[in-house]
Amino acid sequence: MKELFAGVDLGGTAVKAAIADSDGTILTQDSIATHSHDGPNAVLKRIGEFLVDMSNRVSDGHGTLSGVGMGVPGLVDVQNGITKFLPNLTTQWRDVPVADLLSDQLGCPIRLLNDVRTATLGELHFGHGRDRPDITMVFIALGTGVGGGLVIDGRLRLGPLGAAGELGHQTILPQGPRCGCGSRGCLETLASGPAIASEGSRLMQIGLAPTLHDLVDGQGDNVTTKAMSIAAEHDPAIREAIVNAASYVGIAVANVITTLHPDMIVLGGGVAQFGRILLETVRAVVADRVRMFPTESIAIEQSQLGEQAGVMGAVALARSPVVD
Amino acid sequence: MKELFAGVDLGGTAVKAAIADSDGTILTQDSIATHSHDGPNAVLKRIGEFLVDMSNRVSDGHGTLSGVGMGVPGLVDVQNGITKFLPNLTTQWRDVPVADLLSDQLGCPIRLLNDVRTATLGELHFGHGRDRPDITMVFIALGTGVGGGLVIDGRLRLGPLGAAGELGHQTILPQGPRCGCGSRGCLETLASGPAIASEGSRLMQIGLAPTLHDLVDGQGDNVTTKAMSIAAEHDPAIREAIVNAASYVGIAVANVITTLHPDMIVLGGGVAQFGRILLETVRAVVADRVRMFPTESIAIEQSQLGEQAGVMGAVALARSPVVD
Repeated sequence: MKELFAGVDLGGTAVKAAIADSDGTILTQDSIATHSHDGPNAVLKRIGEFLVDMSNRVSDGHGTLSGVGMGVPGLVDVQNGITKFLPNLTTQWRDVPVADLLSDQLGCPIRLLNDVRTATLGELHFGHGRDRPDITMVFIALGTGVGGGLVIDGRLRLGPLGAAGELGHQTILPQGPRCGCGSRGCLETLASGPAIASEGSRLMQIGLAPTLHDLVDGQGDNVTTKAMSIAAEHDPAIREAIVNAASYVGIAVANVITTLHPDMIVLGGGVAQFGRILLETVRAVVADRVRMFPTESIAIEQSQLGEQAGVMGAVALARSPVVD
Repeated sequence: MKELFAGVDLGGTAVKAAIADSDGTILTQDSIATHSHDGPNAVLKRIGEFLVDMSNRVSDGHGTLSGVGMGVPGLVDVQNGITKFLPNLTTQWRDVPVADLLSDQLGCPIRLLNDVRTATLGELHFGHGRDRPDITMVFIALGTGVGGGLVIDGRLRLGPLGAAGELGHQTILPQGPRCGCGSRGCLETLASGPAIASEGSRLMQIGLAPTLHDLVDGQGDNVTTKAMSIAAEHDPAIREAIVNAASYVGIAVANVITTLHPDMIVLGGGVAQFGRILLETVRAVVADRVRMFPTESIAIEQSQLGEQAGVMGAVALARSPVVD
């Protein structure tokens, strides 16, 4: 029998999964639709069957799942593997004992963690943090929301609710836009994918983004950070909007560097695909604002794993717990 | 022979020292003037003699110094006990091997640390952190400058240069006032003692602070946070200025809570003497801005040790190292 570990990234629309061997080598990856409206029991049963099916495929039916790690979009009770607050799924998903339910079905331990903290584990074990056991690293996921994760001296910082590292909800502009969280001027209101796309759409409507207009047929709802990334080469206003958003990310990064003096900052999520414009702006803002100690040695990099960070982190979680 | 430990708080104008026994009980405290212009060799020699003298006083000449901890205002090489950048002393104080010099004189190990990180150790060992070995605590010293220190899971976070925790240089207002550090809109520009006193002085000059005017004979240079604290009970504009500054502290505290999810925030330094106005404002801003997890269980308190935090922390440092 072959010992196998499964990593699961549970999203609002898709469930991504990977099966790894005991060395952490990924043997296969696949995904299914979430259909969260079916309710937690049905969805978890489907995920369980999906994992068994994937395990059988890589082992000719001779594999056994020794552990499952799962990243979920929201707050969880890490110790007990129970969901707490998952804003992107239905309200049925509150207080679901996911670890117990899936463990009954699969007969192995199940570990649950917030998805961005899980992606942070991915970067730690398989990305920029690989082979650096004492690294202090901050991961910021710039996507539909903005989240983060802290690794301090090689160890993921969770806090009592697994909620440490919510860097998207730092106040950047005290009188800034209202945030979904209830506060205002959070980084998420200024540099999430939707925030940037919405500014791109506005610039297009007032005639300042002809290239973007052509790319999305003038439909504001079609504006994506990807389209903006292309348009930025020809539309100066779009480029400026991206630089503005990146400057806010830079302030958030400068603040966390001033607080923690980490070895590395890793930027992930869809917005990170802006690549050089984002990284160069963030680095310039950090050099400008962090003056209390030299920052040349602090690396500011794009995620090495990209969209795979979540599922890879879930594999790392399956293999070893993050809670003492 | 009695085993003794000395804690030293080296400031720009005064050197405070305490002698403790091996249990950490403070036996005596005293202070001398720094006269930093005499240069490091002369000042350190004087400090050494002062410590020997204090030790002899508490032990009838039968004591021996087993260790000295010293907090200094600036950056130090913690591993080697060498000063790096001490902006409040003369330039002669750069790269001084304090540990070696004082150790030659006293014949015991000398440990050096930034003064605010030392005060953080004081709160950890003798103040709010006492008997809480796993506490995660953030100390913010609101004085002439604004500094801070982080205790994560019971352990002081230093970072590679002992510079982690520089919370006074978080950006609070991206386009705010120029800061001494070279950045702008840092917490220090908005909530240090001088920043608050300068606003008090301005309000007095334009006739909005009659009580403060009486207290300081209309002399702007005489305005202190202490005078403002008294005037705030009668001058609404002064009260408002204090609340404004406290709101900025609140934003900084909210950001660090969102980042680290600590158990406790401790506010120290001269500005902390505003007491209730400061604490209530900070607590209200935190409740308003931290929405990602419940904050009721996060204590936000005034320093228990006040001006003694530095020298008490230096005693803790003398008794046990903070570096692995």
